[in-house]
Amino acid sequence: MKSKADIRMRGFLKRTPVKTLLALIKEHSQSLSSEEILTVEASGRILTQEIISTVNVPNFDRSAMDGYALHAESTFGASTYNPLMFSIVGQVTPGESFEAEVKSGEALSIMTGGPLPKGTNAVLMAENAELVGDQIQVIDAVSPGKHVGLIGEDIKKNQSILKNGRFLRPQDIGVLASIGLKSVKVVRKPEVELLITGNELLKHGEQAGGVKIIDSNSVMLSPLIKRDGGLLKAVHHLPDDRDLLRKHLSESSADLIIVTGGTSVGIEDHGPILLDELGELLVHGITMRPAAPTGFGLISGKSGGGAKKVFLLPGNPVSCLSAYDYFVGRTLRLMGGRSAEWPYRNKLVKLATKISSQIGRTEYVRLRIENERAFFIAAGGASILSSTTQADAFLLTEEESEGFAEGDEVRVWLYDE
Amino acid sequence: MKSKADIRMRGFLKRTPVKTLLALIKEHSQSLSSEEILTVEASGRILTQEIISTVNVPNFDRSAMDGYALHAESTFGASTYNPLMFSIVGQVTPGESFEAEVKSGEALSIMTGGPLPKGTNAVLMAENAELVGDQIQVIDAVSPGKHVGLIGEDIKKNQSILKNGRFLRPQDIGVLASIGLKSVKVVRKPEVELLITGNELLKHGEQAGGVKIIDSNSVMLSPLIKRDGGLLKAVHHLPDDRDLLRKHLSESSADLIIVTGGTSVGIEDHGPILLDELGELLVHGITMRPAAPTGFGLISGKSGGGAKKVFLLPGNPVSCLSAYDYFVGRTLRLMGGRSAEWPYRNKLVKLATKISSQIGRTEYVRLRIENERAFFIAAGGASILSSTTQADAFLLTEEESEGFAEGDEVRVWLYDE
Repeated sequence: MKSKADIRMRGFLKRTPVKTLLALIKEHSQSLSSEEILTVEASGRILTQEIISTVNVPNFDRSAMDGYALHAESTFGASTYNPLMFSIVGQVTPGESFEAEVKSGEALSIMTGGPLPKGTNAVLMAENAELVGDQIQVIDAVSPGKHVGLIGEDIKKNQSILKNGRFLRPQDIGVLASIGLKSVKVVRKPEVELLITGNELLKHGEQAGGVKIIDSNSVMLSPLIKRDGGLLKAVHHLPDDRDLLRKHLSESSADLIIVTGGTSVGIEDHGPILLDELGELLVHGITMRPAAPTGFGLISGKSGGGAKKVFLLPGNPVSCLSAYDYFVGRTLRLMGGRSAEWPYRNKLVKLATKISSQIGRTEYVRLRIENERAFFIAAGGASILSSTTQADAFLLTEEESEGFAEGDEVRVWLYDE
Repeated sequence: MKSKADIRMRGFLKRTPVKTLLALIKEHSQSLSSEEILTVEASGRILTQEIISTVNVPNFDRSAMDGYALHAESTFGASTYNPLMFSIVGQVTPGESFEAEVKSGEALSIMTGGPLPKGTNAVLMAENAELVGDQIQVIDAVSPGKHVGLIGEDIKKNQSILKNGRFLRPQDIGVLASIGLKSVKVVRKPEVELLITGNELLKHGEQAGGVKIIDSNSVMLSPLIKRDGGLLKAVHHLPDDRDLLRKHLSESSADLIIVTGGTSVGIEDHGPILLDELGELLVHGITMRPAAPTGFGLISGKSGGGAKKVFLLPGNPVSCLSAYDYFVGRTLRLMGGRSAEWPYRNKLVKLATKISSQIGRTEYVRLRIENERAFFIAAGGASILSSTTQADAFLLTEEESEGFAEGDEVRVWLYDE
């Protein structure tokens, strides 16, 4: 192995700083093209058009209260000494209209949301009217426009409602539905293919035994890809076979391919060689621990133009998790038009233990939080996935840092819930 | 209307404090029963069993490095002055095993993850061995166990891995997969039915016009229900017809029913009357603005025992949003075994404007955030959904509070992204 001067060894003689990889990701991760989808399914997506309303919402004046619609001017002069009587000439509820014109001295029973009939311009609240037979007695003047929601009060015709690039919230798609927009243009979701390599791996659900282990990476990555807005199109479990991996890498129509395993410098590590052969191996080996063998590159020829992005992630599950989270998730979010920002909540806590880190290296440190103090979880090599289930949070040390002393206040990222 | 002394008026004569409704929700919102689902689909769900591993992971000693497996004791005494030679008798890669026993003076080429063959107890890193023909030259002793991951290093047989009540993270289901667990018991998702009432409402996708408006509430609530772990089983758009609403309320098999519209004290407000008739109207009318007409009650007779929870939400979309978010979302999270805590991120910002609030009333205030300062959004009655798209955040005033002065630091909740 040591004698083999191939691309794999070159990768490792010079490890790429984490910051350089992040910059490369930013450079290569533009928003994908648009697609048109149903408005009702667009929550959480990124808008690629400005929305200008073609209608008024509501498209009529309406009552903001349960009460009586009347002509405000007819109530002028009303007082307890001079109660004015109005004949109730009908009733209007939301969704119905009263066709006749309401005259002076007349009132119409109206419900919240009901359209104001002709001849009326105000609503007297039910509580302020005394019902006497089929009349109401009014003892206070009502000003014009009182308790009336005017046409377009929510949204005006030709009003710009949402800007291009908007992350669509639940209330946004409510507004889009209310202006009658059936479909909407959004950034399409990056399609992801997962190639899980390793002769030693069994698919989840297979019977474990002998010298094989069950693949946990595909199981763990699937919900993370979904969280970051990716669309997982295919998961393939492959043996360590260069030709088979080459075939999958070349033929995939995904926007982004994740290869787990085979990223290092051993004889079974086909990923780096194939990326170099089929496209461009931009990074192989990074200054992060675990996840040092991480690779990143491009393979051109995706149908519709553009290169396929390929991440080589270590097979060890902790490395795989940290490299996914720090690099791949970010890439997917950027491709989907989102903020690169981490989806985890963060907070400041005091360290209950010292954390050492080598200068020039970013460490992915798992922590247990107890009473707002963070404890280092020692039980964890790159292969110990259970260390991430014992952890409540993690942090990444800066490359310039030698770590932290006990008692230091550090910002930690909380694993979901 | 005023003369009608029915349940609707009673509800409004005495408004229930927000805190009382929250306490009632807590009292009535136990975790639902369990269901067994595929492990690979269990991310984000709540475990209802303790998980104890029946296997060791890995189930064999394995190499933690690319290098040479050998018997450590055979290297004792090796130095630059006394290089020791080991014959390479074969190779083992992950997923394969080397059946013969490796003897003293022999070494086996091994890849990271490969199972240690019989007769070996340490791994010499490839970088530290000089390859000479089919032998390696060793110039430093290797201690027993060096670079070896012992059987059970990740998970030990009979070890408790995850506790009952655990929120399952992506890495958790990875661990569950790695111990061969195909399915897992979790709290089942609360089933939700949405009854959108109002003669004035059109379904989204219908052509707007006349005195009708398009329903935005179902569109807005769907993603929120999903976010809070609910399973939206049905959405029905109903006219203001008491018999039809009664039929839906009685026949629904949902765990939780949301009725929008018809919650107030007008003649078309059937919700409160029906809840009183079919079950128990626990709350009608609350000290919150908007959303004052909110109601909450129970209807017994859900198949499988237990009562159906029913929320009466105002039809005005801002009221509907705030009441859903403050009460219904919380209920769904508790029924699903989750924390009642709000899913929104929060932060402290300075108020750029004064906010008034009436003592005894909780106000749902929408805010625009600019340069870490919060601006009150004035343009918003309960019917102005677009006010929530202009807002970046919201806050709820305390009932005891008269509001905030300009410059006060307040905790705000950020709408998604």
